[in-house]
Amino acid sequence: MIVILAGPSGAGKTTLCKMLVKKDKKLEYSISATTRKKRKGEINGKDYYFLTEDEFKRWQLEDRFLEFAKVHDYYYGTPKDKIFKYMKDKKDIIMDIDVQGAEIIRNKLNDIVSIFLLPPDLDEANLRIKKRGTENKDEIKSRLKSALNEIKEIKNFNYVVVNKDLKECADVIKSIIIAERHSIIRMEV
Amino acid sequence: MIVILAGPSGAGKTTLCKMLVKKDKKLEYSISATTRKKRKGEINGKDYYFLTEDEFKRWQLEDRFLEFAKVHDYYYGTPKDKIFKYMKDKKDIIMDIDVQGAEIIRNKLNDIVSIFLLPPDLDEANLRIKKRGTENKDEIKSRLKSALNEIKEIKNFNYVVVNKDLKECADVIKSIIIAERHSIIRMEV
Repeated sequence: MIVILAGPSGAGKTTLCKMLVKKDKKLEYSISATTRKKRKGEINGKDYYFLTEDEFKRWQLEDRFLEFAKVHDYYYGTPKDKIFKYMKDKKDIIMDIDVQGAEIIRNKLNDIVSIFLLPPDLDEANLRIKKRGTENKDEIKSRLKSALNEIKEIKNFNYVVVNKDLKECADVIKSIIIAERHSIIRMEV
Repeated sequence: MIVILAGPSGAGKTTLCKMLVKKDKKLEYSISATTRKKRKGEINGKDYYFLTEDEFKRWQLEDRFLEFAKVHDYYYGTPKDKIFKYMKDKKDIIMDIDVQGAEIIRNKLNDIVSIFLLPPDLDEANLRIKKRGTENKDEIKSRLKSALNEIKEIKNFNYVVVNKDLKECADVIKSIIIAERHSIIRMEV
């Protein structure tokens, strides 16, 4: 089972993935590759694979991505190798991904559970991005514009969760994962 | 949303419903009517509506049941009035029901979430029924036979939960309810 957590920037996707993986031995986090700058406290190979544009292009040529997309001037990609390893090990996988990427993954792999994570409102998302202080004004504008576009895709997802409170939101996603593990479509009957 | 908990006798359905309703203000328990004898500790109007055969037939004639069925020589029915009241109050409803009844409810109402509750194995179900000490040998045989038949219907359910441990099982069902409340099909988008 692959759990996709998608939604606008500032919805808290990455933090949530980390919280969930820590408490669930059957769940692994798919680390994305990106060309965006490393933020304070982020570790290469743990939070993201931080690549230069040249490195990213090489990975593309070497067909190492399940999907990749340009979002807000930076490239983001989902490396294949770990995904297939986890699938072989019968682990469940969680990934945070942009809405375009979610669409591609849905078409390439089976057994996808997709969750759209909404910030309580877009002002709140705006505030969180500003607080993060890592984006300039143009980037913020671009992220908010694409947030509005992304929300239109919500109908293609299985679940919608509003991230009012991080702990509460993590509990809901945990419930979704537990429920899906008991879904008849995953039973051998 | 109506949550149906079905499965063989001795799987722990009624106990689980009670546990879940106690902890969830949005969830109401649909009390069944039955012609079977009251067991020790059971309260009329709380655990079941205990009716005589004549009373049960009158309720049938007055069209007061959403569904009714004869199971193991006794009649069981789901009264309509409370169900419609809870639906009007935007409450979720949980009901424990036999497999035949589940089929009827599924055809009559929308927005059903159906859970098949399995005892860890049928010997265990056997043991629980014997422990309860309320059924005679023929009744036990009849219940076990129908358990085997009921399990064949499992594919028509949304979820399957094995009741190894009552607390654990209640947590899984709680997760299913939380997940379903966040399903895209219940969002107004």
